[in-house]
Amino acid sequence: MNNIDERVKRILDSYEQFGGVNLTDSQNFPNREAVVSALLDIENLIFPGYREDLILNSDSIESLTGERLNRIVRVLTGEVVKAIKYTCLHNNRDGSGCYKYAEEIVLMLIDEMPEIRRLACADANAALSGDPAAQSIEEVILSYPGLEALIVHRVAHFLYSKGVPVIPRIMSEYIHGKTGIDIHPGAQIGEECCIDHGTGVVIGETCIIGRQVKIYQGVTLGALSVKKQMLGKKRHPTIEDNVTIYAGATILGGGTVIGKDSIIGGNTWITSSVPPESRIYTTA
Amino acid sequence: MNNIDERVKRILDSYEQFGGVNLTDSQNFPNREAVVSALLDIENLIFPGYREDLILNSDSIESLTGERLNRIVRVLTGEVVKAIKYTCLHNNRDGSGCYKYAEEIVLMLIDEMPEIRRLACADANAALSGDPAAQSIEEVILSYPGLEALIVHRVAHFLYSKGVPVIPRIMSEYIHGKTGIDIHPGAQIGEECCIDHGTGVVIGETCIIGRQVKIYQGVTLGALSVKKQMLGKKRHPTIEDNVTIYAGATILGGGTVIGKDSIIGGNTWITSSVPPESRIYTTA
Amino acid sequence: MNNIDERVKRILDSYEQFGGVNLTDSQNFPNREAVVSALLDIENLIFPGYREDLILNSDSIESLTGERLNRIVRVLTGEVVKAIKYTCLHNNRDGSGCYKYAEEIVLMLIDEMPEIRRLACADANAALSGDPAAQSIEEVILSYPGLEALIVHRVAHFLYSKGVPVIPRIMSEYIHGKTGIDIHPGAQIGEECCIDHGTGVVIGETCIIGRQVKIYQGVTLGALSVKKQMLGKKRHPTIEDNVTIYAGATILGGGTVIGKDSIIGGNTWITSSVPPESRIYTTA
Amino acid sequence: MNNIDERVKRILDSYEQFGGVNLTDSQNFPNREAVVSALLDIENLIFPGYREDLILNSDSIESLTGERLNRIVRVLTGEVVKAIKYTCLHNNRDGSGCYKYAEEIVLMLIDEMPEIRRLACADANAALSGDPAAQSIEEVILSYPGLEALIVHRVAHFLYSKGVPVIPRIMSEYIHGKTGIDIHPGAQIGEECCIDHGTGVVIGETCIIGRQVKIYQGVTLGALSVKKQMLGKKRHPTIEDNVTIYAGATILGGGTVIGKDSIIGGNTWITSSVPPESRIYTTA
Amino acid sequence: MNNIDERVKRILDSYEQFGGVNLTDSQNFPNREAVVSALLDIENLIFPGYREDLILNSDSIESLTGERLNRIVRVLTGEVVKAIKYTCLHNNRDGSGCYKYAEEIVLMLIDEMPEIRRLACADANAALSGDPAAQSIEEVILSYPGLEALIVHRVAHFLYSKGVPVIPRIMSEYIHGKTGIDIHPGAQIGEECCIDHGTGVVIGETCIIGRQVKIYQGVTLGALSVKKQMLGKKRHPTIEDNVTIYAGATILGGGTVIGKDSIIGGNTWITSSVPPESRIYTTA
Amino acid sequence: MNNIDERVKRILDSYEQFGGVNLTDSQNFPNREAVVSALLDIENLIFPGYREDLILNSDSIESLTGERLNRIVRVLTGEVVKAIKYTCLHNNRDGSGCYKYAEEIVLMLIDEMPEIRRLACADANAALSGDPAAQSIEEVILSYPGLEALIVHRVAHFLYSKGVPVIPRIMSEYIHGKTGIDIHPGAQIGEECCIDHGTGVVIGETCIIGRQVKIYQGVTLGALSVKKQMLGKKRHPTIEDNVTIYAGATILGGGTVIGKDSIIGGNTWITSSVPPESRIYTTA
Repeated sequence: MNNIDERVKRILDSYEQFGGVNLTDSQNFPNREAVVSALLDIENLIFPGYREDLILNSDSIESLTGERLNRIVRVLTGEVVKAIKYTCLHNNRDGSGCYKYAEEIVLMLIDEMPEIRRLACADANAALSGDPAAQSIEEVILSYPGLEALIVHRVAHFLYSKGVPVIPRIMSEYIHGKTGIDIHPGAQIGEECCIDHGTGVVIGETCIIGRQVKIYQGVTLGALSVKKQMLGKKRHPTIEDNVTIYAGATILGGGTVIGKDSIIGGNTWITSSVPPESRIYTTA
Repeated sequence: MNNIDERVKRILDSYEQFGGVNLTDSQNFPNREAVVSALLDIENLIFPGYREDLILNSDSIESLTGERLNRIVRVLTGEVVKAIKYTCLHNNRDGSGCYKYAEEIVLMLIDEMPEIRRLACADANAALSGDPAAQSIEEVILSYPGLEALIVHRVAHFLYSKGVPVIPRIMSEYIHGKTGIDIHPGAQIGEECCIDHGTGVVIGETCIIGRQVKIYQGVTLGALSVKKQMLGKKRHPTIEDNVTIYAGATILGGGTVIGKDSIIGGNTWITSSVPPESRIYTTA
Repeated sequence: MNNIDERVKRILDSYEQFGGVNLTDSQNFPNREAVVSALLDIENLIFPGYREDLILNSDSIESLTGERLNRIVRVLTGEVVKAIKYTCLHNNRDGSGCYKYAEEIVLMLIDEMPEIRRLACADANAALSGDPAAQSIEEVILSYPGLEALIVHRVAHFLYSKGVPVIPRIMSEYIHGKTGIDIHPGAQIGEECCIDHGTGVVIGETCIIGRQVKIYQGVTLGALSVKKQMLGKKRHPTIEDNVTIYAGATILGGGTVIGKDSIIGGNTWITSSVPPESRIYTTA
Repeated sequence: MNNIDERVKRILDSYEQFGGVNLTDSQNFPNREAVVSALLDIENLIFPGYREDLILNSDSIESLTGERLNRIVRVLTGEVVKAIKYTCLHNNRDGSGCYKYAEEIVLMLIDEMPEIRRLACADANAALSGDPAAQSIEEVILSYPGLEALIVHRVAHFLYSKGVPVIPRIMSEYIHGKTGIDIHPGAQIGEECCIDHGTGVVIGETCIIGRQVKIYQGVTLGALSVKKQMLGKKRHPTIEDNVTIYAGATILGGGTVIGKDSIIGGNTWITSSVPPESRIYTTA
Repeated sequence: MNNIDERVKRILDSYEQFGGVNLTDSQNFPNREAVVSALLDIENLIFPGYREDLILNSDSIESLTGERLNRIVRVLTGEVVKAIKYTCLHNNRDGSGCYKYAEEIVLMLIDEMPEIRRLACADANAALSGDPAAQSIEEVILSYPGLEALIVHRVAHFLYSKGVPVIPRIMSEYIHGKTGIDIHPGAQIGEECCIDHGTGVVIGETCIIGRQVKIYQGVTLGALSVKKQMLGKKRHPTIEDNVTIYAGATILGGGTVIGKDSIIGGNTWITSSVPPESRIYTTA
Repeated sequence: MNNIDERVKRILDSYEQFGGVNLTDSQNFPNREAVVSALLDIENLIFPGYREDLILNSDSIESLTGERLNRIVRVLTGEVVKAIKYTCLHNNRDGSGCYKYAEEIVLMLIDEMPEIRRLACADANAALSGDPAAQSIEEVILSYPGLEALIVHRVAHFLYSKGVPVIPRIMSEYIHGKTGIDIHPGAQIGEECCIDHGTGVVIGETCIIGRQVKIYQGVTLGALSVKKQMLGKKRHPTIEDNVTIYAGATILGGGTVIGKDSIIGGNTWITSSVPPESRIYTTA
């Protein structure tokens, strides 16, 4: 016989021993699966019929949309409540009475949907007009990971901006795992953005990105220092309007500004500002 | 109460407002899940038993193969029909009578299976003989993402070469999401190719890659210009036989040719042709 | 009619023709889905409640843990048996009598769980203290792909060190696909490691990494030569304690040692040793 | 080889040969799974939380109910449309323009929900007060098949009374399969009905059953003649208020009336009317 | 702690102790789920589109049928092999070489499909013309449990007549559980049979039922004696053509013959033969 | 637009209105799905491998059994806790501190498993020796609904006898729905019982059934009076050892005793005691 009882006991002891990671905390923790299912509902709300196996028609779209809105409110509010309570727990405060507050935030997110949808269409058109390989806007919506990463980011950023903890991060890690594009929910990204191919892109929490910016795979918009005391300070660069950043470029630092209409070549390494209309290439 | 009716109405209005992305188009759109399920069936047809939870034996392999062929014909033809109709719709033409045409293409793909299987075996042997860490060909088939990306590419490229719209792109984005390897279905790739580790590899639509080429993670074979008017022109490099390209190298331009038997070092940046037997390294 | 019978026959012929990849071998092959399900069970054993949709409480944790241990023993032992038999088959030896041997290895892995859990907590604390964007250890456990990759690696490395074939590789490819972080099961990684963002990281089989090492996205710790005869030799670098390696750095070679307390800048290319406390940056 | 092609051809020929049962008809046929899923949604709407694995609370009940109503409207309307079109097809009429009509019927069903819920509560209380083995109304709701059969019947009967074809029958057969209680959707059943144990109960299309009627297992309320020309005539008995019918009793005929306050003993066979307050027993 | 190890041991001891029901036998036992899935495939082969959630059309029906035939051959042959081996094991014989034999039986079953389909259509028409409540043949196919029980019986009886052990019984118990109609696979049932409502019907192994027989709920066609030595003898009645048997009638005995054109009333108890054109009613 | 908001409001009002059936109660209600999943685990514990799709062998049976025991303890204890709390709630008492109590009951049930298994083997042998159509004990275990109903009854009766509310009833209704056999958890049933065919059998709460009793389909062992004040009194008959009761017999009353070695014919109606060795038949 395998002495499983004894082995169970040793593992239970291990749970006791490391105080920072105990069970009580996990109980009020947002559930990853629930957050992701609400996120997929939101994606399908924005572009109905593109990623789901449903026959849509003009007759049924009203009840489908109503069903979806209610489900998003129910599921996402439930998780936001847990996220808020979890933070209270950490701050030794009381999480009671927060359902209505959480629901209000989710309803605000829903009221933002037409705007997020407008931005997504603008992003899709930017990808279509900038990529000779793209044949139609439907193809872009269906198959461009960069577009999906931006949609998810705009949802996560909205919740981040309302102070919702943990959940925006679950959303951004979900899409990071799926696309290889890692955008912190705090980053501010302007209209008509295009992230092409995207694998390995990292965009930090305090980035500010203007309009019509194009970013290729492997680009890092990061921090020069990752000391914990930098918390709350601007640690990541500013990219002005109409900048293109080619594959593998690394741009670091909270004070670094890439002036508008610049082109940053591939595999470059930039830690200080460059003026508008710059052309930066490696010499190798 | 949450005024969901009013919120539904606002979202329905948003669907009306942005004309390029409306519901009618989505109805005849290929379904991503169906395309992926057919693709997985094709992968299991090529290497039966390696990725599926099925007890195989020489008795049942005939009916299993027959079941699979019929299912691939049924599912993939259904999606190809939608893809063709969708294109017709965009071109204001009539999509009627295209089932037989779509079925013929899928049957041609099936007739190509022994050849794709032969190429996959050659790719697998190339990986095995080139990687000291690989212990057997079965291990390579089971666990090398580069090999799976090449198998999917050869399927997608076949459909691309027959003029099937959208579906090859769904296939390449599926495997891009899974492996981090982004190969456009238009790229031409020779025998005994090996993509090692693979995360971040980008291979553009008009690339031509010879035999026995080895490519490491983070390699970009891209375009110098992405202007829309480049559509249909050769925008990506040519890699001749027996070339090795190390991690993070970037090779750009439709006229750029890497001569046979060359070795391109890691993190290099190449925008013009190099002769055969070149050795290119960064000096840093 | 579509002549499916004839097409089935041609594909069956193709299975006959390529001898190295035949059905008989696949029968005793570990099943990927079973290995991954056991791995997820192990992850949930280490941090119960964080990634699973289960209500945990102090009452039920004992029976939940017992259920999990037994299931891990049952499922993983079954796959280890197949992996061992498969290897025997390749070596023309007999695989009989290996159930008890396989079970012993799995029980040893379970006895290692408290230690792996301790290491994971140390890794999580390292991530928390080194990232201004991280707000709590629970958030790190839930959403940092680098932490999950390290947990999976420590499990895979344990099995690798006991000589279990194929299965450690299935585990490492699973987490590679999910996170873009590719760590060979053979690599030795010290305590309090932190891999941030992680996409595109490659860590080779014979790497030795000290304590408190921090690694960013796109870092390669690779081999200078991948000739098959290098099998069993140290081909990948040694990273000493307290080294930070920024995004896109490439460090190659079995004799290359990065001295302790060094900082390696982004996009650097290093093929020989550097002394302790080095600061290496590209000059571009 | 197994000559599957030839066998497929023979089966396709068989589909051609029997004209009354061909494919074209089946395309506009209601889908059984969709009808049943809508029915389960309706059951959960009536008694939320009793049969579903959902944490309910007063906060989320509003959005849960909204989600459910919209889903019922969407799914059930879709099936009602098909049922109506299918009937039109059979009558050589055109089924166009029937979505709005179908939706109106479904919305009327939803408006009937509070009434069906009131009746279900009355039925449940009748079961509770009449069965010494029942301990609470929740237990009755959760575990009495007779109550579930009555709830489903009231839903099916509502649709039947609005002239919806086929779908009421799918619902009654679903619950027949689950409980062994076969109530034709046409039967009229009064308040505070109780069907105990229920297996083998058959209640015909033109039955009229009063208030506070109690029916045991194996009771048949059937027709004396099943000639096709009886279509539309009253063929099944009338049961007045406050009648109890014990196990295995058979009551037949459209003109047969069981007077109020009667008790019909088990295994009796009744083909003509009995006056109020009758006591009918077999003499065996 | 709960001393689970000790409890496991006691249960393992219990497995050892009761010799007739041990593990070794169960290993070669047909799998109920696999048999049922093949049975559902066969039902859908007979009436494609009626019970499955699939869009059918004349284009795809060929590949759908081919897929289904192959799957039935693969799955059902696998289970028939196990059933035959299991019987051999019991008889101390060797089960080797039986795959081809099993496959032949399954192919014969498939060749019988057009005939079973013809019989099912005849049964359906009989139900339609005999039931005033039935509105169309499609409704009968979709919602009459008696028809489904007959289809399953004809499949099970075919396998029974070829000597396949256990599997016909799994099929008949599956449909017994679903419909409450218990027909032993050995029973011989003629054309145009109709079983209405059906709950509680029992038809024994050696019954012989003629053409155009109509059977109502709760009818038993059983044995007078169930002594084990009756094995292989005719123990159940013969029902000649055009007989109607009303609800709850019990007809027992291997020598009992119900002459053609008879009507057997409800709740009757018959243990000896009756001549043609009899009218038998209870006098109660 | 469909005015769903208004309709939601009306349904929420309906929830408020009927006080006996409100949401708060349902929250602490045992979950039917969880109870059934634990029950299936128990069935598989009793006869491992017969109804589940698992490859069993003597190596893995220990960990499989350990996994199962722990899961049964976890899941069933969780539901028993809810059932006890729910009863407390109804009785205005406090349900705290009942986890350990519930766990003890479940552990007692597990300690009863070898005995329940012994009884099930005895039941199975009784069925085998009494039915000429049964070919092996494995076939009986796999396909006799009467045997499964008895196994479930013995489990439910054990919990009933320990005072667990609601859950035994959920179990008995589950198997009633599956087999048409309705045994109240309170009934006491002796060894070597056999229920053949079974559809429509009803066995009341206070029945006492001796050893070697054989019961056919449609048999009712019921109460003469179902007045609520009978609660707790013996209302159902006593059946002594070695009695056979044929199809459709009805035996009623708490004082009714069927003496040992009696045979009760089909469709009989018995409301008073009969002496040992009686032979009771209807005269019709």
